Amino acid sequence: MKKPLILITNDDGITAEGLNILVQLMKSLGEVIVVAPDSPQSGMGHAITVGNTLRLKESNIFEDIKSYECSGTPADCVKISKRFALHDRKPDLIVSGINHGSNTSVSVIYSGTMSAAIEGAIDDIPSIGFSVCDYSNKVKFDHIMEFVVKIAKQVLTNGLPKGVALNVNFPKKQDEPIKGIKICRQTRAKWQEEFDRRVDPFERQYFWLTGSFVNQDNGEDHDEWAIQHNYASIVPVSFDMTAYHAISILNNEWDI
Amino acid sequence: MKKPLILITNDDGITAEGLNILVQLMKSLGEVIVVAPDSPQSGMGHAITVGNTLRLKESNIFEDIKSYECSGTPADCVKISKRFALHDRKPDLIVSGINHGSNTSVSVIYSGTMSAAIEGAIDDIPSIGFSVCDYSNKVKFDHIMEFVVKIAKQVLTNGLPKGVALNVNFPKKQDEPIKGIKICRQTRAKWQEEFDRRVDPFERQYFWLTGSFVNQDNGEDHDEWAIQHNYASIVPVSFDMTAYHAISILNNEWDI
Repeated sequence: MKKPLILITNDDGITAEGLNILVQLMKSLGEVIVVAPDSPQSGMGHAITVGNTLRLKESNIFEDIKSYECSGTPADCVKISKRFALHDRKPDLIVSGINHGSNTSVSVIYSGTMSAAIEGAIDDIPSIGFSVCDYSNKVKFDHIMEFVVKIAKQVLTNGLPKGVALNVNFPKKQDEPIKGIKICRQTRAKWQEEFDRRVDPFERQYFWLTGSFVNQDNGEDHDEWAIQHNYASIVPVSFDMTAYHAISILNNEWDI
Repeated sequence: MKKPLILITNDDGITAEGLNILVQLMKSLGEVIVVAPDSPQSGMGHAITVGNTLRLKESNIFEDIKSYECSGTPADCVKISKRFALHDRKPDLIVSGINHGSNTSVSVIYSGTMSAAIEGAIDDIPSIGFSVCDYSNKVKFDHIMEFVVKIAKQVLTNGLPKGVALNVNFPKKQDEPIKGIKICRQTRAKWQEEFDRRVDPFERQYFWLTGSFVNQDNGEDHDEWAIQHNYASIVPVSFDMTAYHAISILNNEWDI
């Protein structure tokens, strides 16, 4: 049987430990090619590089694994990989991550990790974004490795529904092992931003964006619930953003 | 009656003609405040500025209109406006645009224009992104002005369903006037990217991302159909990206 072809990318950049872990895990499942940003791209959402140049060069960061670093965003990495790293071979799987930090709930729309996976789904390639909800400087990955492999194997075996990518989050390492995997919906929540206002040496103001996560959801079938109860969460994500229920509301209520 | 408070932003930058048109049109409907990027931000998707500083300064580009230019993305503009431009007053409406170029179909996920509107929806503020499907250097706006005002008035009067923003696109000016407004779903389509590979004076390769739009949708209820038939299109857009239909598929078919 032919080995599956697996494209790996991330948004924390090619030197991130989460990417290295993902490469080591995926090597057991197929032929791996890495195309990752040359610098961290957190919070880039689904940005692409338009009207500016892109760089791509081979890297020797991984032994025995063909890898490239790209000056662009995670979505750029997936786009440019097709011709210049995969040489028009279509991957059987795209995996993005493992992100250092949570991408649950509404964070999916700000997430560079997930934009790479969604870019794969747009191209009909089964795609997964992996994140671990650990913001420490020394993120632990050993408690999630078996789950990453299990989920990737399921997707390689069963594929994914058309137009769907997976947003997979893992809880930070606890004393107890992860309880299992929950298929979830996206939590209703938002980031309450705060701006730290400062003045530079030239007397001009500048700001740092910070914020706190506000969960507005009492359900038990969403990804934040799963993470808080020490489950891995999988949210199937669609790039069709149409609010179908609103079409009839607008047609009925509006006078246009 | 109190005048409604309207926040205006865009992704083409504060000097763009589409923003100017929107400001002039919205002045007739309420009190207008502008917070727009200080440079073009096309293709920024839902990027936010994390781990880097943001600038915000008052501008005098519009007579009699309070306006600010921000170093960040459209989503940053909406976030920073709340405290430092609106001084904690909640706007009754956020309008973004008028974008020079199409944001139909899958372009919604790459669109800075729409990310500002979606940011508004996350905060429960009725929000609209406007775009005109004209890529020329001299975009025409006169054929769409009455529609922009009509749609903004409808939203001010009726509000929008919770969690929903509007993605409004207008056809390029034709000989005939626009036929009307269609409430649509997002077209199934993708951008087939192409990369123009070049070599710089230092013998290093670089790339320009270009691409062509591939419509994969035979329906007549989607936004590309409307634009091609000289209608304005309105797609109600949700930031809940859960593919609900896929939850039961994964629960039933997967062995986890």
